[in-house]
Amino acid sequence: MMKKIAVLPGDGIGPEIIAQAMRVLEVLKADGLAIDWEFAPLGGAAVDAFGSPYPSLTQNLAREADAILLGAVGGPQYDNLDRPLRPERGLLAIRKDLNLFANLRPAILYPELANASTLKPEVVAGLDIMIIRELTGDIYFGQPRGIAVNELGEREAYNTMRYSESEIRRIAHVAFATAMKRGKKLCSVDKANVLETTEFWKEIMIDVAREYPEVELTHMYVDNAAMQLVRRPKQFDVMVTGNIFGDILSDEASMLTGSIGMLPSASLDENNKGLYEPSHGSAPDIAGQNLANPLATILSVAMMLRYSLGAEAEAVRVESAVKKVLAQGLRTADIYEAGCEKVSCSAMGDAVIAAL
Amino acid sequence: MMKKIAVLPGDGIGPEIIAQAMRVLEVLKADGLAIDWEFAPLGGAAVDAFGSPYPSLTQNLAREADAILLGAVGGPQYDNLDRPLRPERGLLAIRKDLNLFANLRPAILYPELANASTLKPEVVAGLDIMIIRELTGDIYFGQPRGIAVNELGEREAYNTMRYSESEIRRIAHVAFATAMKRGKKLCSVDKANVLETTEFWKEIMIDVAREYPEVELTHMYVDNAAMQLVRRPKQFDVMVTGNIFGDILSDEASMLTGSIGMLPSASLDENNKGLYEPSHGSAPDIAGQNLANPLATILSVAMMLRYSLGAEAEAVRVESAVKKVLAQGLRTADIYEAGCEKVSCSAMGDAVIAAL
Ligand SMILES: CC(C)[C@H](C(=O)O)[C@@H](O)C(=O)O
Ligand SMILES: CC(C)[C@H](C(=O)O)[C@@H](O)C(=O)O
Repeated sequence: MMKKIAVLPGDGIGPEIIAQAMRVLEVLKADGLAIDWEFAPLGGAAVDAFGSPYPSLTQNLAREADAILLGAVGGPQYDNLDRPLRPERGLLAIRKDLNLFANLRPAILYPELANASTLKPEVVAGLDIMIIRELTGDIYFGQPRGIAVNELGEREAYNTMRYSESEIRRIAHVAFATAMKRGKKLCSVDKANVLETTEFWKEIMIDVAREYPEVELTHMYVDNAAMQLVRRPKQFDVMVTGNIFGDILSDEASMLTGSIGMLPSASLDENNKGLYEPSHGSAPDIAGQNLANPLATILSVAMMLRYSLGAEAEAVRVESAVKKVLAQGLRTADIYEAGCEKVSCSAMGDAVIAAL
Repeated sequence: MMKKIAVLPGDGIGPEIIAQAMRVLEVLKADGLAIDWEFAPLGGAAVDAFGSPYPSLTQNLAREADAILLGAVGGPQYDNLDRPLRPERGLLAIRKDLNLFANLRPAILYPELANASTLKPEVVAGLDIMIIRELTGDIYFGQPRGIAVNELGEREAYNTMRYSESEIRRIAHVAFATAMKRGKKLCSVDKANVLETTEFWKEIMIDVAREYPEVELTHMYVDNAAMQLVRRPKQFDVMVTGNIFGDILSDEASMLTGSIGMLPSASLDENNKGLYEPSHGSAPDIAGQNLANPLATILSVAMMLRYSLGAEAEAVRVESAVKKVLAQGLRTADIYEAGCEKVSCSAMGDAVIAAL
C-alpha cells in the first residue's frame, strides 16, 4: 500500500531544511519504501500564495495524506497581518482540523553535543525526556475568548482554559502507553492547587493509571516542574501536561540540551496519522543562507517513519545516519564547537545521504 | 511614627526561619527603629487553630499592619483537606484581600554560591534579574471556573484567564518604575500569538511605555522566555508578566541560581504596603530539625525595610550582614559545599546577628 506524505515547507528556513529531509525520503523510496508525496504551502507562504495560512488546497492534501512533514512557519514580514492571517494560525488550524491532539517532544542530549548545553555536563549527560503535550484543547482553543468592555465600562480581555473528560482520557492513554515503551515513569504536570481544570486533569490521570499498573505515576505542580527541569532534569522519563503548560515546559526542556536544532516532534491523531516538524522555529534571520541545521527535520522524518508509516527499520536507518555524521564531527553553525568541521545545511544533507 | 508588622510564621520550616528573622528585627528595634509586631497564624497552622487558613484574627492584623512577614505555608498533613481549607488558600486569600498585586521576585546569583547552580559558571555569573509578576488577577482568580457536566452530558472543567485594562496598567507602572531604578530594560512576557488576554496585555504595556521613554521595552513569548532563561539568562534585567506565567518563570529563574534558599520576595499593594516571604516553600521534610536556611527570610526583612518601612539604611545593613556571613564561609545544608562550614538554621542566625 502506497503511503502519501503531505510536505509543507512553510517559511524562513523551512524550505531549506525540508529540501534535505526530502533527499532522505528519496533514498528510502529508491530503496523500495512505498511512499509518495505532494507539496503544499502553510503559514506565511500560504498567505502569500492563497491569502490564507491554511488554504483549502493544503487542507485537502493534509486530510487525505497518511502523514505530514512540516518545515516551520512565521516571519517578521507577517507580524502585522490581521490575526486570522498570521502564519501561526495556519499551524493551530491544521492541528485542530486533523485532530492532532498528542504532541510528542523528545528532549535528548546527544553525547557528541554535550558541550552545547548551558547546564553542567553531569546534570544533563544522558538526558532523555519525552514530553507529551495535549495539543488541541486547553486555553488555546477554549471559548469564550476575546477583548470587550465589561459591566464597569472598562476594557478587559479573557480566555478560557477548558478540558473535557474524554480529551484528558485520550492523552492520558498516549502518555501511559509511551511510558510503557520507555522507563515506565510518568510525571503528570498540573496546577491542581489553584486551577479546577488541572485538578480535574489530575483526577482523570489517576483513574487511567489503574489500567497501567506497571507505570509509576507522579504529579508535579507546573512551577515546580519548571524548577526541577533546571535542578535535576534526569529525574524525568515521560512527562504529560496540557497545551499551554506543555508549550512552556517542552521549550524549556529542549533548551536544556543546548541543541534545539537537533530535536524533532510529532503531533498525532487517534489513528497515528501525524504531523512531523522540527522543534525549532523558522529562524528568519538565517533563512536562505544555507546555514540552518537540517537534522531536527531529518529526525522528524524518522519519527514519521516510526509512528505513521510503520517503517521502524527505516526509522532506525535514518537515526543511525544522523548519529554517524555527528560522530564524524560534522556540525552546522548552531552546534559548532572548536575541533569540529563546520558545514552548511546542504553539506550536512550530503553527509546524511552518504551515511544512509 | 511606630510601624506595625504582622508576623505569620506559617507551616513547616516557617516558624524556624521566622525566629531567626525576628532576631534581626529585634536588633534593629533596639538600635532605635520604630517598629512593633504581632504574630498570627496563616495556612495549615491557622486551620489547626481556627479552622480556616486565613482566619479573621489574621485578617484584622494583616489589614491594620504596615507590612507582613510570612514564613511559608503548606504540608502533607493538609493535602487531603477540602479545597477551601488548604494552606495555599490562605496565601491566595491574603494576597487578594490586601490587594497585593505586584509580586517582586529577584533572581540573584551570589558570587560565593556560584557553584550551587546547575548552569555553567559563565552563563550565570553576575546574574541579577527582577521578575515582576501580577499577583491578584489572571486565571488564578478569574470567573467563571469549575467542574461541571456540559451540553453533551460529559464532565468538563474550566478556568478563566482575565485581565482588565486597569489591572495591567498598574502592574506596568510598577515594572517600568522598577526598570528605571535598575538597568532600564524591561521584557514583557506574553503569548500574544495565541491568547487575546496577553495580546491586550502587550497593547497596554506599549501604551504605558510612552510615559517611560528611557526604558527599553521588549516583548517575548512565554515559551521562548522559558528557553531564553536557560540559554542566556543574563540578557534580562526586569521581566514583567501575568500571574500564571509569572508563577512558572519566577520559579525557573530562581532555580537558575541553584540557591533558592537565598531568594526573598515582596508582594506589594498600591501604597507599598507589602507581604514579604522567602521564595522557597515550607520544606516539611526538614521542618523542626534546625536545618533550614534562614537567609531568604532575613533578606525578605531587608526588602520589607526598603519597600514598606522606608528604612533603606537598615535594609542595606541587613543585606551587608548576609553578604558577610557568606564571605565567612558559613553555609546551611542546602548551599553547603566542600571547604565551607556547615551550620544550622539558628547558628546562621547567630552569625547574621553578629555581623549586624
Ligand atoms: C507558534 C505557536 C502558535 C506554537 C504554539 O504555541 O503551540 C509554537 O510555540 C509551538 O509550540 O508549536
Ligand atoms: C502555593 C501557590 C498557590 C503559590 C502560587 O501559585 O502563587 C506559589 O506557587 C507561589 O508562587 O507563591
